[in-house]
Amino acid sequence: MDRSQPGKLFVLSGPSGAGKSTVIAHLLKTLDKAYFSVSATTRAPREGEVDGVDYHFLSREQFEELIARGELLEHAEYVGNYYGTPAGPVNEKLAAGYDVLLDIETQGAEQVMANRPDAVSVFLFPPGFAVLEERLRKRGTDSEEKIQARLAQARVECRRAGLYRYIVINDLIENACSEALAIITAEKCRSADRLHFLKEED
Amino acid sequence: MDRSQPGKLFVLSGPSGAGKSTVIAHLLKTLDKAYFSVSATTRAPREGEVDGVDYHFLSREQFEELIARGELLEHAEYVGNYYGTPAGPVNEKLAAGYDVLLDIETQGAEQVMANRPDAVSVFLFPPGFAVLEERLRKRGTDSEEKIQARLAQARVECRRAGLYRYIVINDLIENACSEALAIITAEKCRSADRLHFLKEED
Repeated sequence: MDRSQPGKLFVLSGPSGAGKSTVIAHLLKTLDKAYFSVSATTRAPREGEVDGVDYHFLSREQFEELIARGELLEHAEYVGNYYGTPAGPVNEKLAAGYDVLLDIETQGAEQVMANRPDAVSVFLFPPGFAVLEERLRKRGTDSEEKIQARLAQARVECRRAGLYRYIVINDLIENACSEALAIITAEKCRSADRLHFLKEED
Repeated sequence: MDRSQPGKLFVLSGPSGAGKSTVIAHLLKTLDKAYFSVSATTRAPREGEVDGVDYHFLSREQFEELIARGELLEHAEYVGNYYGTPAGPVNEKLAAGYDVLLDIETQGAEQVMANRPDAVSVFLFPPGFAVLEERLRKRGTDSEEKIQARLAQARVECRRAGLYRYIVINDLIENACSEALAIITAEKCRSADRLHFLKEED
């Protein structure tokens, strides 16, 4: 039986330290056809960052042209730099049957939800702020000030969690990965996406 | 972390030969806490059927009292006998954190969907009517007339599949079981059911 269906668009958000990268790596490895969307930015590449892999590095003029043409699913400006999600590659991959994964913060996610009602939104969170704080500290990469700023940001983001369709709790990374995978599997079983299987032979 | 949540109500429908019993057996075995609802009926027990296990066998008077009291999630009359789903045990199990599984035909399922917007509905179907016919024939239990009647019934039921939230295609029973399990797992990740996890420590 040909089980092919168009791909689905998944938006994953969650505070720094929630485990987004691990969950996304698991999904990319496990799903048949999945594509992780590469964001565009006007900030300068950091050492080791590769254009087209880590980000699409664009000039302000190029970025503003994408905005003007409506070719971004979402975009925002932080500390003087633009960040955004180009719609072109996302739509191409969806049409080719790939599930497309976006890792974006809450403001961008809300833009995607508004622009794309078909997007499936997932908010990832550790089992509480105490655990989040512990994880950020264990990384050992951030100053105390930065940790406190990240925690404050996490509290702000959590207030938006109810806008997402799903909440995945990362108490154990295996739980979080299998819940995220279950969400994608289930969303592809939506009756609206599958009625054609029953009609083909009717 | 205490991951306990109230249970969810799942309604599974699908034509005879779709594989409902196998899927339900898999779910009961795999889920942490799951309960399969036992229907009530006024038909006489068949040989080997046990009251309270296969059905709750009731008199017409008892059944009509349940109807009058609004104590059935759904009910219907077939060939002079009542069949229905008692609400009491379902609600008790949900409150105790069990996922409750109902195996009911489309008319009953539509009553449950109307009465319980929280119910998650799944329509199970083989990969096409040709395969369904083959499966019914292979069972060797039905007359040709009965097989044709089941196929006609399946076509009627399939027209209602779009009313269900999900469609699971049973091409391989392992696929169907894992999709059904993914649906239950995903539905328990709905943000409305999990916001309390984020608020507890806020």
